[in-house]
Amino acid sequence: MRKVGIIGLGHVGVTVAYTLITKGIVDELVCIDTDEKKAKAEFYDFSDALAILPNQPHIIMNSYEALADADIIITAFGDIRLSVEGNDRFGELSLNAKNAKEVGQKLKAIQFDGILLNISNPCDVICALLQHYTGLPKERVLGTGTSLDTARMKRALAQHYNVASNNISGYVLGEHGDSQFIAWSTVQVNHLPFSISEAETKELEEKTRNGAWTIVEGKGYTSYGIASCAVEIVNAIFNDAHQLLVVSTPFNEEETYIGYPAIIGAKGIVDTIELPLSQKEKEELAKTAQMIQEKIDHSL
Amino acid sequence: MRKVGIIGLGHVGVTVAYTLITKGIVDELVCIDTDEKKAKAEFYDFSDALAILPNQPHIIMNSYEALADADIIITAFGDIRLSVEGNDRFGELSLNAKNAKEVGQKLKAIQFDGILLNISNPCDVICALLQHYTGLPKERVLGTGTSLDTARMKRALAQHYNVASNNISGYVLGEHGDSQFIAWSTVQVNHLPFSISEAETKELEEKTRNGAWTIVEGKGYTSYGIASCAVEIVNAIFNDAHQLLVVSTPFNEEETYIGYPAIIGAKGIVDTIELPLSQKEKEELAKTAQMIQEKIDHSL
Amino acid sequence: MRKVGIIGLGHVGVTVAYTLITKGIVDELVCIDTDEKKAKAEFYDFSDALAILPNQPHIIMNSYEALADADIIITAFGDIRLSVEGNDRFGELSLNAKNAKEVGQKLKAIQFDGILLNISNPCDVICALLQHYTGLPKERVLGTGTSLDTARMKRALAQHYNVASNNISGYVLGEHGDSQFIAWSTVQVNHLPFSISEAETKELEEKTRNGAWTIVEGKGYTSYGIASCAVEIVNAIFNDAHQLLVVSTPFNEEETYIGYPAIIGAKGIVDTIELPLSQKEKEELAKTAQMIQEKIDHSL
Amino acid sequence: MRKVGIIGLGHVGVTVAYTLITKGIVDELVCIDTDEKKAKAEFYDFSDALAILPNQPHIIMNSYEALADADIIITAFGDIRLSVEGNDRFGELSLNAKNAKEVGQKLKAIQFDGILLNISNPCDVICALLQHYTGLPKERVLGTGTSLDTARMKRALAQHYNVASNNISGYVLGEHGDSQFIAWSTVQVNHLPFSISEAETKELEEKTRNGAWTIVEGKGYTSYGIASCAVEIVNAIFNDAHQLLVVSTPFNEEETYIGYPAIIGAKGIVDTIELPLSQKEKEELAKTAQMIQEKIDHSL
Repeated sequence: MRKVGIIGLGHVGVTVAYTLITKGIVDELVCIDTDEKKAKAEFYDFSDALAILPNQPHIIMNSYEALADADIIITAFGDIRLSVEGNDRFGELSLNAKNAKEVGQKLKAIQFDGILLNISNPCDVICALLQHYTGLPKERVLGTGTSLDTARMKRALAQHYNVASNNISGYVLGEHGDSQFIAWSTVQVNHLPFSISEAETKELEEKTRNGAWTIVEGKGYTSYGIASCAVEIVNAIFNDAHQLLVVSTPFNEEETYIGYPAIIGAKGIVDTIELPLSQKEKEELAKTAQMIQEKIDHSL
Repeated sequence: MRKVGIIGLGHVGVTVAYTLITKGIVDELVCIDTDEKKAKAEFYDFSDALAILPNQPHIIMNSYEALADADIIITAFGDIRLSVEGNDRFGELSLNAKNAKEVGQKLKAIQFDGILLNISNPCDVICALLQHYTGLPKERVLGTGTSLDTARMKRALAQHYNVASNNISGYVLGEHGDSQFIAWSTVQVNHLPFSISEAETKELEEKTRNGAWTIVEGKGYTSYGIASCAVEIVNAIFNDAHQLLVVSTPFNEEETYIGYPAIIGAKGIVDTIELPLSQKEKEELAKTAQMIQEKIDHSL
Repeated sequence: MRKVGIIGLGHVGVTVAYTLITKGIVDELVCIDTDEKKAKAEFYDFSDALAILPNQPHIIMNSYEALADADIIITAFGDIRLSVEGNDRFGELSLNAKNAKEVGQKLKAIQFDGILLNISNPCDVICALLQHYTGLPKERVLGTGTSLDTARMKRALAQHYNVASNNISGYVLGEHGDSQFIAWSTVQVNHLPFSISEAETKELEEKTRNGAWTIVEGKGYTSYGIASCAVEIVNAIFNDAHQLLVVSTPFNEEETYIGYPAIIGAKGIVDTIELPLSQKEKEELAKTAQMIQEKIDHSL
Repeated sequence: MRKVGIIGLGHVGVTVAYTLITKGIVDELVCIDTDEKKAKAEFYDFSDALAILPNQPHIIMNSYEALADADIIITAFGDIRLSVEGNDRFGELSLNAKNAKEVGQKLKAIQFDGILLNISNPCDVICALLQHYTGLPKERVLGTGTSLDTARMKRALAQHYNVASNNISGYVLGEHGDSQFIAWSTVQVNHLPFSISEAETKELEEKTRNGAWTIVEGKGYTSYGIASCAVEIVNAIFNDAHQLLVVSTPFNEEETYIGYPAIIGAKGIVDTIELPLSQKEKEELAKTAQMIQEKIDHSL
């Protein structure tokens, strides 16, 4: 049976939960939220949906004990308003470092030993903190990282070239935050190498990076894109798919968490690859990793 | 190709949209919202999701022209805070009567002649107003009515008897509002006739009726249950399923819209049935219909 | 993770396998067939499909060891030609009694302790034999029984009354074979009690019972209906749905396997119900149970 | 509403039909087969499945009139035994040239003007004949071409490198037959350029090309891989996805049908791309195109 836990029922956590339920992906779902009334409300809303849906997963609210044998736990805590205020995901660091410590220690206490998939921001730093506090092996803790940014790059290029998003390949690398960058050396349109002017790259980078803030400005948060990223990773874990996905994954000698492609399977990160990046991209990635590592060190 | 329009991107409208997209149900989706920034935000959030999903429907924002050849238009306008204030869905009547007139006239202007599925509250009255202003045949305008209340009754009984929700059959009839009632003569558990004490019926009626307010209290709105109801109706229309579903449907000689089971297909309400209700239930239904009709007459 | 085993890759087994794969229901699938070339062919055909599909389950061929930790094993061995020859599913009894012994003993040897779902004919007798040889508790062995016959009854009535199949409720009870019967006291159209002439019941019984032979005559076997039944049961088990489904289940004091509704969950048959059958139906059921029990006793 | 026609209910046609039904992709399905008993049998088997499934599409058997307003018609006629005999898909040319003429003329007579997707072998030649006899614009007739061969290449490389099939990109080009070839210049593993020894390419080409015959040898036909390819194309058409898929598409100045990537949408082939092939690959493709054109000219 497929069992998933979700910690944090904000807009993102609850959209992930709904997606897993309505698409019949999960058999048992344990949701945790500090707001008891909110948790109860979502439980009733999901239960109403189940009275219509053909699949009938079990939903359990606010029981840490029930998380112990989950295959996957998704962390989606935080307060996006802290990120929105300064247009900077590090605005949530102070709050979420505390959350990561508390959640991590609780998961350690119940001896959780499945896969931990973190969405909370700043994603890469929080991955590292959760890995530290849970004591889980590094390959069993990963984050959505730049998966959403990569989706945004594909969306931006798909609109620009008037093709389907899945005709675009390539990665946004680095931090799920303002220092992310499109690794143009990895990008293909219609699976073809392509040339693009400096001006166009600027424009498409702008569209990719600003995607989040356009959404946040209009609706106060983002939910559907990030939930779709998380669910894709969940599927790859359940299927033990050995699928190449860009996630927040340990990188370099220090094993700093950063957005980079990895092979995902039932054991989490089952393999890594080496991208043939340009010298400039390598340096940008190293610089970002160093910045993230400093934030991690500072938060421990 | 399956083409759906959604008017009103509040929590309900946007959850219906996401469900149609993520489950691959729709080929083209036209969304309308008066808040341009919100519409743009949802468009970007959906587009980000599409860069991950296998299906690639087209999403169009804020074009009434694009609605003209939709198979189904779903109306989900309103402001739930007006209902929540007084714990009464009629709190939205004044606002939504205006919306229904405006939307109905616009749909008439573009000569929309598909199926109109209304979710906006008070659902039954708004169905009637939309039918009036669009000039569509009555069988082509229907509402989610007491479908959600019926789901809530099933959820309440399923929890009470510890069985799956789909082991429960029967209907909540009448107004999607405080005068709704469980038609106990239609209810079965495990598809068996069953007896139940007066006290238990009171308790289960309470749980059914109060479901909405528990959710609204905890999260400020309801979304997943009602979206699942709407999507089930949408599927029955696309499949021309001739499926028996409880909806807001024309009833009695005056064809007052009210929550009652009907046979749903590609042409909307393709047939009606007569429930063998108890005398008391018949009277309750007639009384409710009269109340709704008065509200309709008053709003036209 | 969801792990299923399928023993016997005839038309039925392979259709169940394909359905589980193409709908993303399963994470790991172990298929067993004595015909090595056939097994290899299906493995390659499934693998080709996986290169297209978004989900990426693992498929393992012909390893009994790999079955040990399956959640559910589906038995679909046999040779339908032996049933077709005499228009009698007992034509496969002699062959499948041998198969059941061999398979049952192998499953015991690997200490399989999940749920065993039998499709092989004669379904009820083979359920009993498999339960006997595996030594599994009775509630963990069940069969598709009259689920397909019930589907056929629903199809026949749906066509007769021009409504969707899911508007019909009720059961075909007894043996998945010629002594099955529609329990008219349980049947509802549009969830309403209904009256029907003697002539009509005869006609609809004929259409229900002869469904199988019409299909077999035209294509040599049946596959899509029975696979859909099996997959519905599989979903109920994975979801621990406590869903009421008609299956081959232990019945009466002797716990004879027979087609009858039961509550299905993660532990197999988690509860039973008592149908308010007519005296005539009760007698018919008892008589059929006795006949099945004799075949079981004779085959052990 | 989504309406699909399938002409030819052999193993392939019927598997496509089942996939469209069980995954809820289609609203109305018209199936044509010259064997009335077989068509009736499949109709009953599908109808039995529908009594279980949540979606309720309409299925119509053997009515050419009902095909007139289909969005997509899939041709899957032929007799695979004629191909198997000589291990050569041209074994079916003589039979299917006759079929293509008959079917094409009938579709012209009913003024079908949707998209025609051909699976019948030899796929590329039959595409051309169907386009000729229907009189449809070239962009509205396409075939599964080397989509299955491309899937097989991905499967072979995925197994070789122990990664998910969707980590492999690239194309098998040319004829869906023995003159097909892997365009190694387009192949990537984990979306990375890669080097491979001559011996390995030979081995992987062998595995790709022989996939079909291994399957046919073991089960007498192939079904699940090819059905998955066809359904992917169907989805891209319904979604108007502008998705890059390898299909049998008009190529070169003569517009010879051949397996090559094209952008697929609601109008069929909505755009073409130019692959940066090696000189050797270009020559091989030109030679194959000439061979196919000769077969086409000879068959008209």
